[in-house]
Amino acid sequence: MSVKINENYLLLQNSYLFIEIARRIDEFQKNNPEVDIIRMGIGDVTKPLTPTVLTAFKKAVVEMGDEKTFMGYGPEQGYPFLIKTIIKNDFEPLGVNLELDEVFISDGSKCDTGNIQEIFDLNNKIAVTDPVYPVYVDTNVMAGRTGHIKDNGMYEGLVYLPCIQENDFVPELPKEKVDIIYLCFPNNPTGTTLNKEQLTKFVEYAKENESIILFDAAYEKFITEDDVPHSIYEIDGAKEVAIEFRSFSKTAGFTGTRCAYTIVPKELKAVDSYGNLQSVNELWNRRQTTKFNGVSYPVQKAAEATFTEEGKKEIMDNIEYYMNNSKIIRESLANIGLNVYGGVNSPYIWVKTPNDMDSWDFFDLLLNEANVVGTPGAGFGSSGEGYLRLTAFNSLENTKEAMKRISELSF
Amino acid sequence: MSVKINENYLLLQNSYLFIEIARRIDEFQKNNPEVDIIRMGIGDVTKPLTPTVLTAFKKAVVEMGDEKTFMGYGPEQGYPFLIKTIIKNDFEPLGVNLELDEVFISDGSKCDTGNIQEIFDLNNKIAVTDPVYPVYVDTNVMAGRTGHIKDNGMYEGLVYLPCIQENDFVPELPKEKVDIIYLCFPNNPTGTTLNKEQLTKFVEYAKENESIILFDAAYEKFITEDDVPHSIYEIDGAKEVAIEFRSFSKTAGFTGTRCAYTIVPKELKAVDSYGNLQSVNELWNRRQTTKFNGVSYPVQKAAEATFTEEGKKEIMDNIEYYMNNSKIIRESLANIGLNVYGGVNSPYIWVKTPNDMDSWDFFDLLLNEANVVGTPGAGFGSSGEGYLRLTAFNSLENTKEAMKRISELSF
Repeated sequence: MSVKINENYLLLQNSYLFIEIARRIDEFQKNNPEVDIIRMGIGDVTKPLTPTVLTAFKKAVVEMGDEKTFMGYGPEQGYPFLIKTIIKNDFEPLGVNLELDEVFISDGSKCDTGNIQEIFDLNNKIAVTDPVYPVYVDTNVMAGRTGHIKDNGMYEGLVYLPCIQENDFVPELPKEKVDIIYLCFPNNPTGTTLNKEQLTKFVEYAKENESIILFDAAYEKFITEDDVPHSIYEIDGAKEVAIEFRSFSKTAGFTGTRCAYTIVPKELKAVDSYGNLQSVNELWNRRQTTKFNGVSYPVQKAAEATFTEEGKKEIMDNIEYYMNNSKIIRESLANIGLNVYGGVNSPYIWVKTPNDMDSWDFFDLLLNEANVVGTPGAGFGSSGEGYLRLTAFNSLENTKEAMKRISELSF
Repeated sequence: MSVKINENYLLLQNSYLFIEIARRIDEFQKNNPEVDIIRMGIGDVTKPLTPTVLTAFKKAVVEMGDEKTFMGYGPEQGYPFLIKTIIKNDFEPLGVNLELDEVFISDGSKCDTGNIQEIFDLNNKIAVTDPVYPVYVDTNVMAGRTGHIKDNGMYEGLVYLPCIQENDFVPELPKEKVDIIYLCFPNNPTGTTLNKEQLTKFVEYAKENESIILFDAAYEKFITEDDVPHSIYEIDGAKEVAIEFRSFSKTAGFTGTRCAYTIVPKELKAVDSYGNLQSVNELWNRRQTTKFNGVSYPVQKAAEATFTEEGKKEIMDNIEYYMNNSKIIRESLANIGLNVYGGVNSPYIWVKTPNDMDSWDFFDLLLNEANVVGTPGAGFGSSGEGYLRLTAFNSLENTKEAMKRISELSF
């Protein structure tokens, strides 16, 4: 062949974290077919779509079957009915005003956080927290913004901001000047957050260094503490330096339904090589109109229903259910002397492994001895070594049973 | 700012074709509010989802509301139930055997044909037909595979294969060696096709030149003539040189529902810089698992239903309805002495403008005098100049009325 591949793909690690986890579970289950494994690894919800969402979803499907109400191609950016209700419900109460064309509906934050780097030059310097959601790193590797992976699991050319016990999982500002910073708070995987003062420091850094923050707020609805910003735009001037990603996946149980949204303020500019300011909003709009064709109409109607009074109540009930699980996990593990973090403003609990065990060993121990599946922290980056992520998305019964089993182990 | 944009975006033409069309329609309608415009421009369907599809869609939505049947994250590549039925119905009858992991479900062929170039090196030489679906060109411009656009509307660095009256809209093989060739047959916008012998020449060219063909078969269900291949894999050895894109959009009315699929055979290889063969299937799988999170579960169930016996019948009824419109358009325009092409195996009719009028002038004439909207051929590339595209997706009544109005004009 003479067709050449995008060789950056060869820099990627061979297996995606969750594939290796699935392999180990399969192997264990094959050898122990009678054992009931409780999965607290992958961050997938278990509660079904709520009644109000379901009603709207069904109604929209029925519309698709009638010539008079059938919907063909919609706007690539999403329908105004959904964008309006997002602005009104998610941002206006925070004092954040947005125009309709600053909100882009998509089929998932994974897509948006993965695709956003396309509109920026390859020579921008990128910073990520460590541990980190792998999509931020892998999509930059695939685009060619990194060198090889080093023995410590870090890629040459990326700046890593460790989030560890020693700094209360609050990343320090980059010591060198970086152009683009990925932040996800409430954080996946650590479950910890930044308070307003801490997030303000990042916005100020971005202003001083003329950087852009890519702020993943997929878990904002899980925030329970007052001092934790739900949106980066609660920080003064953040519109000039930040893109925000939000999702219906975890909040409204849309992991299998697929809908998300991304905010690209018009104040946000970047430069071309002549030093001319260019609108990032227009670039993203061009990207989306060229490579994307909008979200399924019934899915957008279902998403809209999450913002009705009844829909909001149902969704908050589900979130409270999950957050009760979070509490049970935190308290049960603390009771047996483990150090646990997160879980207060997030469905993720970040557990320090006992006796400096490495995270895959602790994963194997929990799988083999308690038949509980977590996610090894090392899978999220080298600073995740020595930790394990548990999620609150299982049923209350399973969560309690899992905690009982773990509590019976001796470390 | 010090963040640099992807400057390739500045090479794109300012406005997307359909935005300019919408602008001219809006202006005309504003000045003539009483006029009933018939839109035969954008290739969007008008028939609603069929009853069988609707039933399956609703049933799957209901499943999403019940804890026992709720579906969270699905496979990024799509559910096996849909992949199996695609292989069985679309490919087995053609004698084409595919494995489950050679088929990738997505939310649209626009996404897939736009994203596919990511997995190939930036230095590959790209060929497109002219006229062409703009997404193939624009996504390569955005990636940096071209130079500036020239006065004739062609980008430096791309190879254009003209499809014009003089060659019966059958592109000649590239005169220079190219690495990747985009082909769309039945063609958008010309509505013409390649017969088996003509397509075989491209497969042979690709084998000799070690090229890859990106074959967009979004309109294959509209084929009525025996000698026209429905899949490029009907040609011997094509699995070693071709990726095929298919969609539910035009066939099953999914333009607003969003579902498509892409075939990447395991036989297909490309090279890295050491000359090692690499699996294109594995690259695409990595791309999709990293940047995409699968299609909405109810949408995949709806798509599955298009392959039931009843579903197939309903869909063929819709296609026959549209193809009857095609016939009416072709015959009406031929009757008044216009040269018309396509429309036999496709819902698109490619009309030569009368008296060597340029295509935007003909567009304006039809809009102003007949209140019928087409798509100016020049919008699809310089070889589209002097043509206009009409689509068969309107109602029978509107199609007849549009033809009546055009027939009353004198050219």
